[in-house]
Amino acid sequence: MTIEIQTTTEAAVRRFTPESLRAQIVAILDAWGMRSDSAATTANVMVDTDLSAIDSHGVSMLSMYEKFLVEGRLDLNAEPEVVVDGPAFAVVDGHHGLGHPTGIRSMELAIEKARKSGIGMVVVRNSLHFGALGFYARMASEQGLLSMVTTTTRTPVTSATGGTTPILGTNPIAFSAPRVNGEPLLVDMSTSVVALNKVKAYANKSKTLPEGWVFDRAGEAVTDPAQAYSLLTQLGATISPLGGPTPETGGHKGFGLSLMSQVLSAALSNAAGPLQAGDRDNIGHFFLVINPEAFNPGGQTAENVEHLANAMQQGEDGVKIPGDPEREARRERGENGIPIPDVLFTTISEIAGRASAPMVLAEIV
Amino acid sequence: MTIEIQTTTEAAVRRFTPESLRAQIVAILDAWGMRSDSAATTANVMVDTDLSAIDSHGVSMLSMYEKFLVEGRLDLNAEPEVVVDGPAFAVVDGHHGLGHPTGIRSMELAIEKARKSGIGMVVVRNSLHFGALGFYARMASEQGLLSMVTTTTRTPVTSATGGTTPILGTNPIAFSAPRVNGEPLLVDMSTSVVALNKVKAYANKSKTLPEGWVFDRAGEAVTDPAQAYSLLTQLGATISPLGGPTPETGGHKGFGLSLMSQVLSAALSNAAGPLQAGDRDNIGHFFLVINPEAFNPGGQTAENVEHLANAMQQGEDGVKIPGDPEREARRERGENGIPIPDVLFTTISEIAGRASAPMVLAEIV
Repeated sequence: MTIEIQTTTEAAVRRFTPESLRAQIVAILDAWGMRSDSAATTANVMVDTDLSAIDSHGVSMLSMYEKFLVEGRLDLNAEPEVVVDGPAFAVVDGHHGLGHPTGIRSMELAIEKARKSGIGMVVVRNSLHFGALGFYARMASEQGLLSMVTTTTRTPVTSATGGTTPILGTNPIAFSAPRVNGEPLLVDMSTSVVALNKVKAYANKSKTLPEGWVFDRAGEAVTDPAQAYSLLTQLGATISPLGGPTPETGGHKGFGLSLMSQVLSAALSNAAGPLQAGDRDNIGHFFLVINPEAFNPGGQTAENVEHLANAMQQGEDGVKIPGDPEREARRERGENGIPIPDVLFTTISEIAGRASAPMVLAEIV
Repeated sequence: MTIEIQTTTEAAVRRFTPESLRAQIVAILDAWGMRSDSAATTANVMVDTDLSAIDSHGVSMLSMYEKFLVEGRLDLNAEPEVVVDGPAFAVVDGHHGLGHPTGIRSMELAIEKARKSGIGMVVVRNSLHFGALGFYARMASEQGLLSMVTTTTRTPVTSATGGTTPILGTNPIAFSAPRVNGEPLLVDMSTSVVALNKVKAYANKSKTLPEGWVFDRAGEAVTDPAQAYSLLTQLGATISPLGGPTPETGGHKGFGLSLMSQVLSAALSNAAGPLQAGDRDNIGHFFLVINPEAFNPGGQTAENVEHLANAMQQGEDGVKIPGDPEREARRERGENGIPIPDVLFTTISEIAGRASAPMVLAEIV
C-alpha cells in the first residue's frame, strides 16, 4: 500500500532543470508577443519562485496569465512608467502589463532612492499579478537594505470584522532585513489566515479544510475544500483574517493589517479599491526600502538582526528563521531540479500548444 | 442580584473631569521633579488615552512609572536628542526619559520631514513606555498625513514559532490614514493575540482566559488569569502570537509581524534586542509619516480611504471602522467624564501621598 502510494507520487511529479523552465516560460511569453525584456524578467521571477518552493505563485500561474491575455486584460507591450518622481519617493503606472517587470522596475527605483536619500518609497497602479512579494523584498536585502512590500490582490475574500461581504483580497505583507551573513530575514504572508491558493491546494488534494478558515455568507463554516474554493471565487464565501473569524482570537487585528496593506498599496497610487473592478485590473503595490547605513553606520543594523535571529534559536529545537525554508528549497531544487506534477506539466503543454510555442522543459532523470 | 451588582459597579467606578485628571498627573510628575514641559506633554497623552477608553495605557500606568523612578530607570530631566538628521529621516535618543515627550518630539519631526520630503521616518532608542501608539499615529492623520508606528515593549512574552522561550514583547503596530471627513482610519494592535495588560485585566476580574492565549513553558494552556499573569511577568509563560500557537492558524505570521516591529523599532536605532536588558530600559520606536499630496495631489488619497471605509459598512450591520470606537469614547467621556475604578483611585492617592502631591481629581456628580 505504501509502495503503491510512493509509486503514484513518483510517477506524478517529475523534476526539471531551472534553466529549461526559464526557457519554457520565455518561449510561451515570446509566442504570446510579449516584449523580450519583459519576458526575460518575468521568467526569472517565476523560476526563482518555484525554486523557493512557493509553487502557488510560480509557473502554475501561467494559466491565469493566459486567461488575462484572452480576456484582453493584459497588455503584453506595456512598459512601466514613472509618473511622479521625488528624491525619496515615486509613483509608477504599470499600464496593465504583467506585474513582474513593473515590480522589478519599482523595487529597483526604491533601492536607488534609498541609497541616495536613506529611504525610498514607490507606489504602483495599473499593475497585474506580480508573483510572490518575497522576491522583491529579498532584492533589497541582498544589497544590505531593509524593505517592506505590500500589494492588493484581485479577488475579494475577506470581510470587515462583523460583516459577511468579501471586500478585500488576501492583501499580503512582506518584510526583509539583512543579517551579517548576508542571508536575509524574510517574512512574506497574506493578512488572511491562509492565501486563496492554499484553499485551492487543499481542493487539489481533496483534504478537508480546518474549521475557522472559510465561512459562507450565512456565517456557516465550509470545510469541503472544492466547495470552499468555488464559493470564494464567486464572492459566496470569505476567508477569515489572520487571527480568525472573531475579535476574541484577534480577527479584527488581521483585518486591520489587510486595511493597512490596502491603503499603502492602493490609496496613494489610485489603484482600485474594494468593489471598483473595471474592464481591466488595477492592482496596486507598495515598496519601501530603508538604507540602514544612513541611520546606523558600520553594519550595526545587520548585527542587531543577526542577534535577533540567534535569540530565536537559542536553546530551541525546531525554530526556523523566516526566509530559511525558502533558501533551503532554492539550494535543494537548484541541485535536484524543480518538481512539476504531471497535471501541471500537461497544463503547460496545452498552453504552449495553443501559443504554438515549443516544449523545451528538460527532465532530470 | 442584578441590582446588587449594579450598585457595586456604580459605587466602584466614579467619573472625573478630564481637566482634573490632567492636573492630577501634572501634580504628581511635578512633585517627582520632572521638567515642566515634559510633565505637561505626558499628562496630555495619558488623559487622551483614558478619554479614548484605552484604560490599560493611560493613568493606570502611573504605578509602573513610579516603579521606574524608584528603581532609577527613569531620568526625569531627560530631553530627547536628534542624533542623526537627514532630509527624510532621523534618529532620536530618548536618554531614558519617559517615552511620551520623546514620542511627541519624534512624531513632530517625522511630520515635518514628510511635509518637506514626501516621507519622513524617525527611529528612537533609549526610550521608555510611551503609552498607546494610536495617539502618535492620529497626530499625523489629523494633519492629513498617513502614518505607521511600531515599538518594542519591555517584557518578553512571545516565543518564535516552534519554540517556548519568551524573547519578544507584544511589539505593537499602529497605522492611520485620513478620511475625507477628517476622522482618521486608525489601526492600533499588539502583534500577540492579546496585549499583556489584557491578561492583567482578566486577572482583575477573575475571568477565565480563553484557551490558546497563554501557555506555560511546557506548552500547557494556562487559563487561570492570575497564574498566567504571574508566570508571564517572570518569563514562565508565553502569549500566543496573533494567529494562535501553531502555523495551522497562522501563528508564524503573527510572530513574523512581531519580528518586523522589532527590527523597525530597534535594529535601526540600536535599541535593546531580545534578552539584552541592561540597568536601564532601552525601548525603541519607529515612526513613518507619508504626505499623500506628494504622491497623489488634490486630496484623492483621503477620498480613496473614505471609499474603503464606506465599502466596509455597505449593507452590513455591526461593522465598526477601526478608530471609530475610540473616537466615540472620546466624545462620551469628554461629556460625562473619565471613569476611574475605586481601586485605581486609591492607587493614585497613594502615589500622590508618597510624592507629597495634592489630590486634585474632581468628581462629576
